[in-house]
Amino acid sequence: MRIARITTPAGVRYAAARDENWAVVDDPYADELLYTGEVLPIDGTPLLAPVDPRVVVGIAHNRALREHALPIQAWLKSPRTIIGPGDGISLRRDIGTVNIEGELAVVIGKTSSNLTLENALDAVLGYTVANDVTNIDRVPIDEKNFEPKAGGGYTPIGPWIETAVDDAENVPTTVSVNGVVRAESGSFNLQSTVAACLVYVTSWLELGPGDLVLTGAPATIVPVTPGDTVHVTLGGIGTLTNTVN
Amino acid sequence: MRIARITTPAGVRYAAARDENWAVVDDPYADELLYTGEVLPIDGTPLLAPVDPRVVVGIAHNRALREHALPIQAWLKSPRTIIGPGDGISLRRDIGTVNIEGELAVVIGKTSSNLTLENALDAVLGYTVANDVTNIDRVPIDEKNFEPKAGGGYTPIGPWIETAVDDAENVPTTVSVNGVVRAESGSFNLQSTVAACLVYVTSWLELGPGDLVLTGAPATIVPVTPGDTVHVTLGGIGTLTNTVN
Repeated sequence: MRIARITTPAGVRYAAARDENWAVVDDPYADELLYTGEVLPIDGTPLLAPVDPRVVVGIAHNRALREHALPIQAWLKSPRTIIGPGDGISLRRDIGTVNIEGELAVVIGKTSSNLTLENALDAVLGYTVANDVTNIDRVPIDEKNFEPKAGGGYTPIGPWIETAVDDAENVPTTVSVNGVVRAESGSFNLQSTVAACLVYVTSWLELGPGDLVLTGAPATIVPVTPGDTVHVTLGGIGTLTNTVN
Repeated sequence: MRIARITTPAGVRYAAARDENWAVVDDPYADELLYTGEVLPIDGTPLLAPVDPRVVVGIAHNRALREHALPIQAWLKSPRTIIGPGDGISLRRDIGTVNIEGELAVVIGKTSSNLTLENALDAVLGYTVANDVTNIDRVPIDEKNFEPKAGGGYTPIGPWIETAVDDAENVPTTVSVNGVVRAESGSFNLQSTVAACLVYVTSWLELGPGDLVLTGAPATIVPVTPGDTVHVTLGGIGTLTNTVN
């Protein structure tokens, strides 16, 4: 099921896709979805970032298999960098190359600590597309990943949360810039599996409903410049489109 | 003026100290405080963490003058680690020494980017006491500061926001454990001034109302063990007390 965040006459709401409509739900994290009865047509309803996380965790070094043999690490990204489908990334200028990174993002469904490989994916509400925009030339200067990951609109996510992903460890990823495919890979190509990322993060930090874990870029890293239009597609989930300003 | 966060019959609210009472305010970030008329006695009203930040920024290497000559860096801490006055820090076990760090914390008052040394402190609503609990033996292993700064209740703050601090660059800091003074220093002893911290952070990242900047530990770092009671006092602001579990 697709769950989106939309603006209704009553304010910002979560909604589930039913037939040709977005059906507003009370709480997307509830065990059973409660529909309010409010309905908007899918066609023509603009989508917001599908979640407003309290915590955004990135996974470091989780690049393609054999590309980068470093142990898993994590870092935090500011939720204020999140933008939604169609929004513009404000590229930092004069600090070198800026990359986009097409990633599978996990939306946490419930309060979770010390997950195991066996139960980790039970903590997941669903998955969305993320673009982990990165000032790559700041990495050697700031190993804490503050400067590399900071900029306006540096975390596009969307277009929705897909709760019915059969196999999160095998989601194909395509990154296109201006209509040209620049990278093809998938979560099957990550050094640390999606479950292993959640095990690592929650061994240190409690996560809660709506938190976002960006699982890493399995050879899905492409430099961009102002004026570019970027599409990140995750098979079975959706396509996230953003412009670069 | 002191602004606290308290639980009222109507829910969690911000309140300003007036005479012997907490006078509930509509929005602590408004240009002019609007009092709702609801009043609770200061005596006997438990205080929550005085702010619920969207972003918590720590400043790295901002230790005492001449102690550590590294350039300023920053990192993000999970808002889910925040606890209030009197709450317990859940010490991570079996990972080496855990330190407390007594710090001056800035509560941001308005959306701020690219602050300058001249206007940086104008973006501040007020100041509170912070304790930046740290798994210090994880620093050499995880330079991204994820593991060193992660644990339940690892960011005690409070007891309130003090908006009337004459000189943020000269706030004395005392750290006591079990009633014994273990460190005496102050923001005057930081390598990067409070204003310089805000200039650096906002040169990369937009901050907004309620965000918290932990300005660093100017020789205010003390190891703790379970059973300890910790007091961090900032002159002119207040004393934050927490237990270590």
